[in-house]
Amino acid sequence: MTTRRQDCEALDRGDPLGGMRTRFHLPADLIYLDGNSLGPLPLAVLQRLEDVSRRQWGEDLIKSWNTHDWIGLPQSVGEKIAPLVGAAPGQVICTDSTSINLFKLVVTALKLNSGRRVVLSQADNFPTDLYIVQGLTDLLGAERCELRVVEESAVAQALDDSVALLLLTEVNFRTGARHDMASLTAAAHRAGALVLWDLSHSAGAVPVHLDACEVDFAVGCGYKFLNGGPGAPAYLYVASRHQEQAMQPLWGWMGHRQPFGFQGDYQAADGIGRFASGTPGILGLAALDAALDLWADVDVLQVRQKSVALGDLFHTLVGEYPALGVLRPAGPADADDRGSQIGFRHPEAYGIVQALIARGIVGDFREPDIVRFGLCPMFLRYVDVFDAVAALNEVVDRQAYLDASYRQRSRVT
Amino acid sequence: MTTRRQDCEALDRGDPLGGMRTRFHLPADLIYLDGNSLGPLPLAVLQRLEDVSRRQWGEDLIKSWNTHDWIGLPQSVGEKIAPLVGAAPGQVICTDSTSINLFKLVVTALKLNSGRRVVLSQADNFPTDLYIVQGLTDLLGAERCELRVVEESAVAQALDDSVALLLLTEVNFRTGARHDMASLTAAAHRAGALVLWDLSHSAGAVPVHLDACEVDFAVGCGYKFLNGGPGAPAYLYVASRHQEQAMQPLWGWMGHRQPFGFQGDYQAADGIGRFASGTPGILGLAALDAALDLWADVDVLQVRQKSVALGDLFHTLVGEYPALGVLRPAGPADADDRGSQIGFRHPEAYGIVQALIARGIVGDFREPDIVRFGLCPMFLRYVDVFDAVAALNEVVDRQAYLDASYRQRSRVT
Repeated sequence: MTTRRQDCEALDRGDPLGGMRTRFHLPADLIYLDGNSLGPLPLAVLQRLEDVSRRQWGEDLIKSWNTHDWIGLPQSVGEKIAPLVGAAPGQVICTDSTSINLFKLVVTALKLNSGRRVVLSQADNFPTDLYIVQGLTDLLGAERCELRVVEESAVAQALDDSVALLLLTEVNFRTGARHDMASLTAAAHRAGALVLWDLSHSAGAVPVHLDACEVDFAVGCGYKFLNGGPGAPAYLYVASRHQEQAMQPLWGWMGHRQPFGFQGDYQAADGIGRFASGTPGILGLAALDAALDLWADVDVLQVRQKSVALGDLFHTLVGEYPALGVLRPAGPADADDRGSQIGFRHPEAYGIVQALIARGIVGDFREPDIVRFGLCPMFLRYVDVFDAVAALNEVVDRQAYLDASYRQRSRVT
Repeated sequence: MTTRRQDCEALDRGDPLGGMRTRFHLPADLIYLDGNSLGPLPLAVLQRLEDVSRRQWGEDLIKSWNTHDWIGLPQSVGEKIAPLVGAAPGQVICTDSTSINLFKLVVTALKLNSGRRVVLSQADNFPTDLYIVQGLTDLLGAERCELRVVEESAVAQALDDSVALLLLTEVNFRTGARHDMASLTAAAHRAGALVLWDLSHSAGAVPVHLDACEVDFAVGCGYKFLNGGPGAPAYLYVASRHQEQAMQPLWGWMGHRQPFGFQGDYQAADGIGRFASGTPGILGLAALDAALDLWADVDVLQVRQKSVALGDLFHTLVGEYPALGVLRPAGPADADDRGSQIGFRHPEAYGIVQALIARGIVGDFREPDIVRFGLCPMFLRYVDVFDAVAALNEVVDRQAYLDASYRQRSRVT
């Protein structure tokens, strides 16, 4: 071993983000490398949930829609997300789930780019992104919507004049591979296509520049690097230049110009508000709102810098253990090409993840053979990476993954 | 006055539901007649939110999807709602908003009843129910979906052989008027139409018999009489006999047969599970789940009986104050024809509501001229109705509604 644990301790002492760890509730004796699946609990969320339930709901009841501006939360939370994705005000709203928001925006894009019907994506996009387009094809017919999937490396070449929309996830959920948003967006526009980016594995981990890249649409979830809690509400982005023409299909009353006028005919609100549908879930929005306040004291570039350093350290350490030579990297070696997770392929990946969990190291498994580790700079320490790789070495070297108790798979893996 | 306050106190002493009031957090010195808009806070919800945030999310993190069965919550919460709407197991799922669920089920119904394209509803249905169909018409074209609205009294006659789906809200949000679910469902079926009932103003207040009435589809919200909190997740019902053929259009990964297989092609889950779309919001689901536990100790028939008694008392008391002769009833006089709210029309309805709120009596205003009072038997007392009507008399008799401070309308009324 070239790298010593005390080297990592020194890195932690010099870490400008080191203090952020105290803002989270983290279980003792656990190294949590799964914040890219479910971010841990910010302490401020506990206080906010207490306030929103006991005081706002319990004491102030129905008037809280006005006095605590519950009615404005989808847009005010959207405005807190906006700087993390490089969006000027008025373009982000926090609402529904990522899947529902994908449906809204794919339909919107197909209407704006009428005359074309192909939604181009990659075969290994996150499944819900593909399923939503498949469902839309089933609804509208193949003459109005066709999903075309190609391999990751073939996306740019596949942009022909039939493509209405390029639909990609910036950071791949399995491998951590990161697309070049700027160049792919420009290529799509040159081909006459619009672009919809899924930022679920980007926002809060990788600097995103939606406005600067002239992106048309984006969606993302609130429960990964944004730490909004399990199933936190999602968000969507519509570039200002499209908002007047853009029209999403789920005409719920909260997207109406005057929801409490209770009029019989739908009239879409101006601006991003028309992308709301039903009544917003206030508990989930309030939790995410409190979690986003962490960003008041953190620079996303610092977060990225530490994420890269944690990932490079992980790779270096894996390279220093001879037994770990059996692991094949599941994603790009170059930090520029990856998001904020790293992964390794091994035929016994599921057993490795289970054996690590038994040792207090929480990563996760992704089909078919990937051990996946999320790197969340807000609360992870360099020593955590050191200890995690040491445990990984022990598990692989001693074949601890063969333990029979790891054979039974959970419903959620 | 014929009715005395002490008569109401005696009714409270004999009330079999009287003890339920202690299970809620209720502000002192407030009479809350708006539980049909936002149910008050059950104390059990506070405990549950603490548990689901601090212990489940905070300590157990990602594994809670399995160990605390977060992944099963949409269906397990659905099963708690099922007996309140007269549904056998396997037919209700708690997910998304009422608006989104309406979209899913209107599309489902149009596909099942192909060859017909008309969705019949009433002009004064809750707006989101109508807007959703308007949005669908915009998406599919008028040749595949047409909204036809008629006056409330003309619904049965309008059921001709072009109607694919009858879409009604059982209890009208403005007036409290209640449809006859059994006879209208039977009439729709005779005409070859399917039926979708919106139960937002029914469930938890009026006994509903979906299975017995052979209803096809239903939706409803969790934040009114179910006390699930602001913007609580909604639910939907699909009769077992339709589930194999039924297919909703929002193909999110949570409706997939094997969400964590991460396969490229959508395969709908068996049964009611296919009506899920995106990742479920656990905080909102957990709060509603805890609120529904109140029903373990309460019979919905008892609730209905008390609701009728509270409404009749309200009408009786209004009749006893000469000054209140200017109020015109906004809904049916006969308890059989109404849900669990009553209302009165007055040109200064908005001012009346504001003046009552200033006196600690919380009802609400509905366009254009309705003062609306929700009657929630779980926590309301007969003396509350007595005191509310006394205050209403004072406001109307002294024209307190003319106070200039009541002129400025809130965003949410």
